[in-house]
Amino acid sequence: MTAWEAILELLEADDDELLGAYVGSLPASVLLRALSRLSHEERERLLRQLPAETAAYLIEEVPDLQAADLIDGLPADEAAAIVSELPSDEQADVLAALEADEAEAILEYLDPDEAERARQLISYEPNSAGGLMMTEYVSLPPSADVAEALDAVVGHSNDYALYNVQYTYVVTARLKRLLGVARFRDVVLAVPGSKLRAVMKPVQSISVETPLPELTDVFEAADLPALPVVDSRNAMVGVLRRDAVIDALSEKASVEHLKSQGIIGGEELRSMPLFTRAGRRLAWLSLNIVLNIIAASVIASFEDTLSSVIALAVFLPIVSDMSGCSGNQAVAVTMRELTLGVIKPVDAFRVWWQEASVGLINGIVLGLLLGAAAWAWKGNVYLGLVVATALCVNTLVAVSIGGTIPLLLKRLGFDPAVSSGPVLTTVTDMFGFFLVLSLATALLPRLTG
Amino acid sequence: MTAWEAILELLEADDDELLGAYVGSLPASVLLRALSRLSHEERERLLRQLPAETAAYLIEEVPDLQAADLIDGLPADEAAAIVSELPSDEQADVLAALEADEAEAILEYLDPDEAERARQLISYEPNSAGGLMMTEYVSLPPSADVAEALDAVVGHSNDYALYNVQYTYVVTARLKRLLGVARFRDVVLAVPGSKLRAVMKPVQSISVETPLPELTDVFEAADLPALPVVDSRNAMVGVLRRDAVIDALSEKASVEHLKSQGIIGGEELRSMPLFTRAGRRLAWLSLNIVLNIIAASVIASFEDTLSSVIALAVFLPIVSDMSGCSGNQAVAVTMRELTLGVIKPVDAFRVWWQEASVGLINGIVLGLLLGAAAWAWKGNVYLGLVVATALCVNTLVAVSIGGTIPLLLKRLGFDPAVSSGPVLTTVTDMFGFFLVLSLATALLPRLTG
Repeated sequence: MTAWEAILELLEADDDELLGAYVGSLPASVLLRALSRLSHEERERLLRQLPAETAAYLIEEVPDLQAADLIDGLPADEAAAIVSELPSDEQADVLAALEADEAEAILEYLDPDEAERARQLISYEPNSAGGLMMTEYVSLPPSADVAEALDAVVGHSNDYALYNVQYTYVVTARLKRLLGVARFRDVVLAVPGSKLRAVMKPVQSISVETPLPELTDVFEAADLPALPVVDSRNAMVGVLRRDAVIDALSEKASVEHLKSQGIIGGEELRSMPLFTRAGRRLAWLSLNIVLNIIAASVIASFEDTLSSVIALAVFLPIVSDMSGCSGNQAVAVTMRELTLGVIKPVDAFRVWWQEASVGLINGIVLGLLLGAAAWAWKGNVYLGLVVATALCVNTLVAVSIGGTIPLLLKRLGFDPAVSSGPVLTTVTDMFGFFLVLSLATALLPRLTG
Repeated sequence: MTAWEAILELLEADDDELLGAYVGSLPASVLLRALSRLSHEERERLLRQLPAETAAYLIEEVPDLQAADLIDGLPADEAAAIVSELPSDEQADVLAALEADEAEAILEYLDPDEAERARQLISYEPNSAGGLMMTEYVSLPPSADVAEALDAVVGHSNDYALYNVQYTYVVTARLKRLLGVARFRDVVLAVPGSKLRAVMKPVQSISVETPLPELTDVFEAADLPALPVVDSRNAMVGVLRRDAVIDALSEKASVEHLKSQGIIGGEELRSMPLFTRAGRRLAWLSLNIVLNIIAASVIASFEDTLSSVIALAVFLPIVSDMSGCSGNQAVAVTMRELTLGVIKPVDAFRVWWQEASVGLINGIVLGLLLGAAAWAWKGNVYLGLVVATALCVNTLVAVSIGGTIPLLLKRLGFDPAVSSGPVLTTVTDMFGFFLVLSLATALLPRLTG
């Protein structure tokens, strides 16, 4: 019996305890796969039958958007009970994915302190230190005794949220200004009765507004599992774990890949509602069809040439498609180098130069291949010459655009992952059609002779 | 002055100490960007002038393939001095990226124990527990005293490799069979004079052969920063950090994105040699041009229809390109769900069904759009009907293939990230051309009338 069937059976049997124990025992990927087999109603029923703690585990394991979709169907008080069991960073992610009024309704049912903290976390940019940090940490004033610090850490030692953060942060009593950090081992090895003031060490902190790309550098340099996050007045507001930064980067890379393939507005799982999925994909496709029609209109203006040499119609899609492929390779390398931070928009000229050299080599090779095929097919060397020249030049154009367009789009404030592909293929299609057909027009007597 | 210019100036000045200090202070992304401005010779000179420890820092920060390229140019003894400074997991990655004889030449210069360990690590599958683990950890027999364990951990506390692994593994004295783990806090809080046997706890271990996707589940479930790795006889061979698993997953996602865009055989940075870059891209493009020619040959067999209705040449690239886009969306969602473990090859039928429903909606909308454009342009409703039907049907075909082909390829043992795109576009191009032209042939009197 698969996990999905087992869940259905337990739902039928109405044995909430067993259902909770079973769901809590499933690894994330098995759980996700099982959820994708359940209908929307079954998932909601499952969530309501589970104890809040297990329901929270389930919510943590599914992507934020799907989590929000699940939470959305529950009464606000039941939703609040589940949300309250989530660690602070996950709480903020799920609430941020809900409609504002839904989120507010849930916040009403939370403990006022917790609600206030969640509101604060939601207000930060998701991919910044504030959006990624967690608010579960141990802090004490410098006058505290090492025994107090030991109690505080050991008392939380079963709290998974702290498993990785064996630090006591030393902050001023009232304004919580960050003074330093006492490492667990220093607290343990200290002379009994010492004050934290005596064992604490200076600590590097991160501003709550630091964006994700900078955070990577900070953690590479600091080589620590977690760093404290402070606001503009140096008051401590949270702890950022290195894991959370790596996770966020990996998430960002996946989303960019999806975007570049036309899945925009967040990720898609097939368990999401049909019309949401169709509508989101269609938003991008409808723009694309307009761009395609514009590009193909170039062909329409050369109808005379085409009807004289109908064989050209065979080569139009080949030239445009191959140039698109070459250009997409260049886009992929630029996006990769942008993510690694190896290049910035100011490097556009150097990138262009490095792409042009590759484009020239590949354009010549591909042009010769296609030209030879055309010559062999129709026995007309001029036809070969037309398609060879067009493909060679258009490859050069495609890699030049592909390598630099993400940099230009980024500079102009567009999302390069979404827009690079459509801009690239529209331009290379138009230019490819134009090259084949205008060269053919110029050599028309030779082609029809 | 930028980092790149500063490095060049320090190289000129021959001030090795300052150069070492400067390079060691740069964050990874700044260093990578600076390196990409240096010529191959300058990078090699830089590496040779740096102290081995700083050179190792630099090698750690660049992608493995580039690291191997840098190391490759050095005499084996100098290379060995740098390799010896790398943590064990990074050592294995760099050596694995070198030619076998180059790697062996370097291993000859290493301390025999270190060389043996490195050979062992290289022999594991890169994306498995063995390929990702590190061999720096503290282990002691059960008869050891807690004071010994404390010394061992505190003695290594400045060793960055251990920063995250505050565990002493308890293993049998001779065969190193894993018995349990003593957590730092339990060692500290134990009655002085206790033996590790008394404070150790049972520990979950990972088999050295566990593949990456399973490792994710293991860490999700265990929620610990690191787990011990054992061989088939339960002898401890290494420690796997959760960070290493997340890093490997993120790396895998990037490489898959690059592959899907035609950058195969590992990643490309523009600082790599020109002919390597051109050759690798060309390997994929040359296969693609053959597939393109095969697909376009469908057009050649309908020359009569095309010459009667030359306007069709405008719609051929639009139908094939739009179907390709719809199909690629489906491929992206399937690849995403495969990575998350939500679907497996056996789910192909369910995936097809879920794609077909989206494809039908989107095919109808896009077909109506394109059909209306064709009708408006030529004033012939039958032309509109031909292109609308062709695009609608081909969208359905494209999402059906796009959604399921990665599953089929995976089942057949191919890499879905590389092969899905070319298979998809070849089939949808052929089918798209065939649909437009055969429908037009059937309605020829209406189109020319």
